[in-house]
Amino acid sequence: MVPRRELAQIVARALEEDLGRGDVTTDALVPATLGGRAIILAKENGVLAGAAVLAETFNQVDPTIEVTALQVDGQPVIVGATIALAHGPAGSILKGERVALNLLQRMSGIATATRRYVEAVAGTRAIIVDTRKTTPGLRALEKYAVRVGGGQNHRTNLSDGVLIKDNHLAAIRNEGHGIAEAIRRARAYAPHTIRVEIEVTTLDEVDEAIAARPDIILLDNMKPALMAEAVRRIGGRALVEASGGIRLESVRAAANSGVDLISVGALTHSVPALDISLELQLDRG
Amino acid sequence: MVPRRELAQIVARALEEDLGRGDVTTDALVPATLGGRAIILAKENGVLAGAAVLAETFNQVDPTIEVTALQVDGQPVIVGATIALAHGPAGSILKGERVALNLLQRMSGIATATRRYVEAVAGTRAIIVDTRKTTPGLRALEKYAVRVGGGQNHRTNLSDGVLIKDNHLAAIRNEGHGIAEAIRRARAYAPHTIRVEIEVTTLDEVDEAIAARPDIILLDNMKPALMAEAVRRIGGRALVEASGGIRLESVRAAANSGVDLISVGALTHSVPALDISLELQLDRG
Amino acid sequence: MVPRRELAQIVARALEEDLGRGDVTTDALVPATLGGRAIILAKENGVLAGAAVLAETFNQVDPTIEVTALQVDGQPVIVGATIALAHGPAGSILKGERVALNLLQRMSGIATATRRYVEAVAGTRAIIVDTRKTTPGLRALEKYAVRVGGGQNHRTNLSDGVLIKDNHLAAIRNEGHGIAEAIRRARAYAPHTIRVEIEVTTLDEVDEAIAARPDIILLDNMKPALMAEAVRRIGGRALVEASGGIRLESVRAAANSGVDLISVGALTHSVPALDISLELQLDRG
Amino acid sequence: MVPRRELAQIVARALEEDLGRGDVTTDALVPATLGGRAIILAKENGVLAGAAVLAETFNQVDPTIEVTALQVDGQPVIVGATIALAHGPAGSILKGERVALNLLQRMSGIATATRRYVEAVAGTRAIIVDTRKTTPGLRALEKYAVRVGGGQNHRTNLSDGVLIKDNHLAAIRNEGHGIAEAIRRARAYAPHTIRVEIEVTTLDEVDEAIAARPDIILLDNMKPALMAEAVRRIGGRALVEASGGIRLESVRAAANSGVDLISVGALTHSVPALDISLELQLDRG
Amino acid sequence: MVPRRELAQIVARALEEDLGRGDVTTDALVPATLGGRAIILAKENGVLAGAAVLAETFNQVDPTIEVTALQVDGQPVIVGATIALAHGPAGSILKGERVALNLLQRMSGIATATRRYVEAVAGTRAIIVDTRKTTPGLRALEKYAVRVGGGQNHRTNLSDGVLIKDNHLAAIRNEGHGIAEAIRRARAYAPHTIRVEIEVTTLDEVDEAIAARPDIILLDNMKPALMAEAVRRIGGRALVEASGGIRLESVRAAANSGVDLISVGALTHSVPALDISLELQLDRG
Amino acid sequence: MVPRRELAQIVARALEEDLGRGDVTTDALVPATLGGRAIILAKENGVLAGAAVLAETFNQVDPTIEVTALQVDGQPVIVGATIALAHGPAGSILKGERVALNLLQRMSGIATATRRYVEAVAGTRAIIVDTRKTTPGLRALEKYAVRVGGGQNHRTNLSDGVLIKDNHLAAIRNEGHGIAEAIRRARAYAPHTIRVEIEVTTLDEVDEAIAARPDIILLDNMKPALMAEAVRRIGGRALVEASGGIRLESVRAAANSGVDLISVGALTHSVPALDISLELQLDRG
Repeated sequence: MVPRRELAQIVARALEEDLGRGDVTTDALVPATLGGRAIILAKENGVLAGAAVLAETFNQVDPTIEVTALQVDGQPVIVGATIALAHGPAGSILKGERVALNLLQRMSGIATATRRYVEAVAGTRAIIVDTRKTTPGLRALEKYAVRVGGGQNHRTNLSDGVLIKDNHLAAIRNEGHGIAEAIRRARAYAPHTIRVEIEVTTLDEVDEAIAARPDIILLDNMKPALMAEAVRRIGGRALVEASGGIRLESVRAAANSGVDLISVGALTHSVPALDISLELQLDRG
Repeated sequence: MVPRRELAQIVARALEEDLGRGDVTTDALVPATLGGRAIILAKENGVLAGAAVLAETFNQVDPTIEVTALQVDGQPVIVGATIALAHGPAGSILKGERVALNLLQRMSGIATATRRYVEAVAGTRAIIVDTRKTTPGLRALEKYAVRVGGGQNHRTNLSDGVLIKDNHLAAIRNEGHGIAEAIRRARAYAPHTIRVEIEVTTLDEVDEAIAARPDIILLDNMKPALMAEAVRRIGGRALVEASGGIRLESVRAAANSGVDLISVGALTHSVPALDISLELQLDRG
Repeated sequence: MVPRRELAQIVARALEEDLGRGDVTTDALVPATLGGRAIILAKENGVLAGAAVLAETFNQVDPTIEVTALQVDGQPVIVGATIALAHGPAGSILKGERVALNLLQRMSGIATATRRYVEAVAGTRAIIVDTRKTTPGLRALEKYAVRVGGGQNHRTNLSDGVLIKDNHLAAIRNEGHGIAEAIRRARAYAPHTIRVEIEVTTLDEVDEAIAARPDIILLDNMKPALMAEAVRRIGGRALVEASGGIRLESVRAAANSGVDLISVGALTHSVPALDISLELQLDRG
Repeated sequence: MVPRRELAQIVARALEEDLGRGDVTTDALVPATLGGRAIILAKENGVLAGAAVLAETFNQVDPTIEVTALQVDGQPVIVGATIALAHGPAGSILKGERVALNLLQRMSGIATATRRYVEAVAGTRAIIVDTRKTTPGLRALEKYAVRVGGGQNHRTNLSDGVLIKDNHLAAIRNEGHGIAEAIRRARAYAPHTIRVEIEVTTLDEVDEAIAARPDIILLDNMKPALMAEAVRRIGGRALVEASGGIRLESVRAAANSGVDLISVGALTHSVPALDISLELQLDRG
Repeated sequence: MVPRRELAQIVARALEEDLGRGDVTTDALVPATLGGRAIILAKENGVLAGAAVLAETFNQVDPTIEVTALQVDGQPVIVGATIALAHGPAGSILKGERVALNLLQRMSGIATATRRYVEAVAGTRAIIVDTRKTTPGLRALEKYAVRVGGGQNHRTNLSDGVLIKDNHLAAIRNEGHGIAEAIRRARAYAPHTIRVEIEVTTLDEVDEAIAARPDIILLDNMKPALMAEAVRRIGGRALVEASGGIRLESVRAAANSGVDLISVGALTHSVPALDISLELQLDRG
Repeated sequence: MVPRRELAQIVARALEEDLGRGDVTTDALVPATLGGRAIILAKENGVLAGAAVLAETFNQVDPTIEVTALQVDGQPVIVGATIALAHGPAGSILKGERVALNLLQRMSGIATATRRYVEAVAGTRAIIVDTRKTTPGLRALEKYAVRVGGGQNHRTNLSDGVLIKDNHLAAIRNEGHGIAEAIRRARAYAPHTIRVEIEVTTLDEVDEAIAARPDIILLDNMKPALMAEAVRRIGGRALVEASGGIRLESVRAAANSGVDLISVGALTHSVPALDISLELQLDRG
């Protein structure tokens, strides 16, 4: 389900940003009584995510606009497909157009990219997950788009998952301890409802980690062969996640190593928007 | 100059989004008294934009962190170059790392892309400008990054520029009028301090527009040869802007037509982040 | 059109300010079930501005109040005229009364004053415009009231118009440059969608300005005869605005000089409220 | 003491309103390194109120600006007197100038008007008090300015004073009760820490009110002779307040009736700003 | 009447706090189309306060939930009594359950405790009032609950009542003055609409206070016999309030001294929640 | 570590609530130049939690107040012990006193209660954890106080832990499935970084749960003997949590059953404040 609360806040902020003190062009030229019908169209093949953005945006601008979604999130759209219709005052539609498209295109871009990764690993046990490399302010919507594309979410912020990285471990080693102590302290401090994950970079660290019984072991920047050996050693005693610069070209090889999860920052930090446009037909006076 | 007010708000929102109820891993494992030195490094060639993000982010997390910028916005950075240093409590640096990098990478990505377009039209009269296809919530920073990259800004929202598009014109034609009336009404309604721009798609519309004396004529989706003819007909009586799906491959041809401005949505809606990383060295206990 | 978003925010803030922790008198004495009809009446002749304030205020207090506007913005009202009716819970009407009247009276006061200036220059080419000397927090509504009164708006903030004043020019002259360089730098920095205006105080500066081709020349505190000479020299190559302590007594003389625009700070910084009252008739039990 | 919390919020909102996305003129033309000295000068005789606005505004724009107040609130200022000095980056001073002056002029205008009323009743027992007819959003500062001018404050919102007006009484009479019951109910509902005041318009109501033992009796729109008779009848058993369209010309006659308090809406709803200007001297490069 | 504005804000904040990024369990397991009926039940005897919390909370979560209150605020509830019903999407009910109960239980706990104090002083002239020892952020609702329980409110914040305590008096004595001067200054500074109360601890101070004619005298931490003597000396010339560690066991003795008001901090700072539960019946598929 | 961000927000809100338009008593009577020293004292034995509240509150009121903590969070305090000192303007200290004490007393009350539960289960394997039955708006501080008292935190909101309760299970059974399917769906939907917990009420459900391999099994409202049998059957294959009306009297028996965790709602929903007071010594004039 789209996170409604965050969607409403993000749209409100975006409208304030885009409208400024009002749309002077539209207010000057489009009579308040002139109606129109907007057709939202795919201009590219992809996966739709964020159909709810349309109703949210147009209704924040003007509650009298009626939006009819013709496609649902997760559906593959093809060039020329009608995604939704909106009917209401033409001026109001014009005021909401840019914000609605900016969000819908970005979310659909992410779902489309995620789908490609998911398809690339089909038949393996690997699940594609996202990272915290999201657009500041849009994380809730971007994480939703990843789910729509068939991926799963990693922790969404620093408080709902323990992930012990190299720097945390360095702090512990600084005190003369190792992975076991790091995991012990994390368990003692964090709510018992969240899991403890540890990042490792070598097979020695894999062995050290196994002994400390974390819930998840993250293999950072390992080659596929090394990953496979790590998976073998772990032997199901923890979930195994692969991470580090994995792109569409390399994701299959990573998946073939037998890892449970592959996290991909590029799903959100560098994804092109999906091309979607709005065409407006004015009502006859 | 970086827009300080917007930067502070965006960083505050991003930190709230990323920290949630606190960084449980760091709070569990990194002693509050442990200091560290962070080195922010370019991992890719590009143009730096947003150096101020680092101090803003780290100081919002912890005012005792000291940030020293070694490079300034607009400077080309090369792989391995040190962009800035930060010194302070190691735990605080870890809490701000992701937010700082997410913003800095995106802004630098935009500046880098802009610079490429600017270089592609070097020697012509064309100025590269952005559009309203920006990330919702980040427009002020993204428009700044475009300026850093050597571009100029189009209007930043719907109230600081009149741009009469096809749909506005259709509403006017609906009443039996044309471009002249549209421009007359816009001038009567808008503050006299902002310019009136009109979008045209054919040479006939160019002629109609010229007669109505707008400040700017936008040539929408025209081929370079048509643009050149439009520029010739306008003959300096208005600024001429080219727009519509122009990419790096095609921008030079557009510029050669003699237009004054070329607006490029891809500068902000689909730009890859510039790869930048943070390395942390812990102080000796 | 009234700026709805700003209106809603201003009313919400005003209600919070005026209601505090609740209207103890009304809550103690007026039964929630008692209905009433409010008649909003002009007690002075003037121009109405802000009719939408009534519905906005009363509905924020209580969505069940029904407001019927009998007069529209821009209409001249005469003593005793009924501006609007409101029907609903008597207690809710009493809670909104003061805020509604405070705003409506101020906006109508501004529209009334503006109308007087506009009438005073009737038959000349001069347009009356406002300034940034507005009430902090109420600018959007006050600028709207000026339009209602027949005036036009100057830039509404420091970002949607370039106005080079004496101090900016002094900074440039400090570097050994003059008006031409100031205008060149402003054009290079600002979005191409906004105009460049320069303030001058002498005929020499007028000549220097003309050569630099600004979009607008502001004649600051000039006598009418000097203005006329300036207008003659400029000869239509820029819009001409007169400014500086112009009051109702002197505005006609300024307009006769042939300037295009006259900006008047007194429209908003010192205008008396228009007297409007609310009479409440209680429903029979 | 100036209400610091409200001052900070009002200034922040005003700066956001006035700066928009930034001061394009100043950013384009005034180097960040150029310093300046601002002299804030009275251009009219009056009473200063709001000196703290200057430091608050300039420091919100730029914490490095140093403001030195030369006059304190409540002090009479004469044409040409220097009110304060500010020193710091010239560009920052220009960005804060308009907001600082808009607030300072309005507050000083109110203090000046209040002082005139206070002087007009000198020698009588009457205290001048304000009303709730204040500028929406600025009440805290305007009420402070009234105190600076020598007046006292009426309740600042609907929750910190009980004032039973004609409509409240009508609701009670509707149920077959009168003033006594109204006062009884108000005392039972409101905190015991606030007083109960009742508005009356005739001598009969005065008598009815006296019997009900309110803390304060408000004489609404009575002629001075009637007021005097009311004061005589009340005989010190309640505070007596006069209200209703009292202006500077009529305030002395009202005061001579022997009332304790005179409330004057015009102190805040229609007061002209006091003329104050800022002159900037640039530092030598 | 429940303070609606504060209720809405408190519920919104509580939901944001409790929902975080969404209820993952419910979103994973409860179909959006599954309806349910919630029965809100008393599990303890007490006084209901905050019935409006239910509709406010459930409707903020989901406007389609219909809430029917079966009991009204102030009503005694007994174990097993149905307080209200809610019908709508089962998932939405589950998301609002905890927040609704947390608030309702706390408010009802306060009303229940207040009722006990009120009953303990039945037949005396004493009114039970609250203090400023309320839960930060919930004061408006807690003060309302006290009224529901039959108590009355003391000042709700530091600006709607003057209460001169030992430390204020010490400051005045520091300057060589006493109670009379303290009361004089307070009256000169504060709005005339609020009363002046002074705290005393000895009979000598009572005498000093009487001479200074405050509106209210607060007897701090006196034994009942001393209170009775103070009441006798004051003889109706001021309201008399008793305060200081009064609990249910001791409140009757205090009331018998003849004081007008007894303030009890324990009403809000240490009150146990009233046990109330929600049972959900799912609609048949 | 105290959650600083939430602390700052909670204190700001509480100060706004308590100060209203300003402390009229203090502003009228305490000269701004008068200094004072506050001594914060324990009036009861207990565990201190929230020492940081003092500096945060006093510094928000007035940054010149200096606060020196003499005791740290988690420390047992005894009657008469000095917790902290504050020095600065006496008026500012008086303005912050109530808010500071209200928060500090509540947090210390929670830590004190938690410590009692922790001590009651000493020697068993059971960890005391809190619930979501916290004060709306104060959860972050209350959960922190539980940790200070020696407890651990359960999930802090509905998004950082999966807890499948009876109603969720009913929804699944409604579709013809059972615990296994519920856990499967939860794992597929939720981030892999959080654990899956299931509530059971009978031994049959315990068996069904074991087979479905949840991370945590919550025994709801079971008698100790039943709990012991459940623990035996689970045999370490999941964490075991006991819940449901457990109070100080019964917690030891629950712990003796061998459960890993005991969650106690009473830690936060009904805890008495710890008595702490502030004494102010004025500086000599």
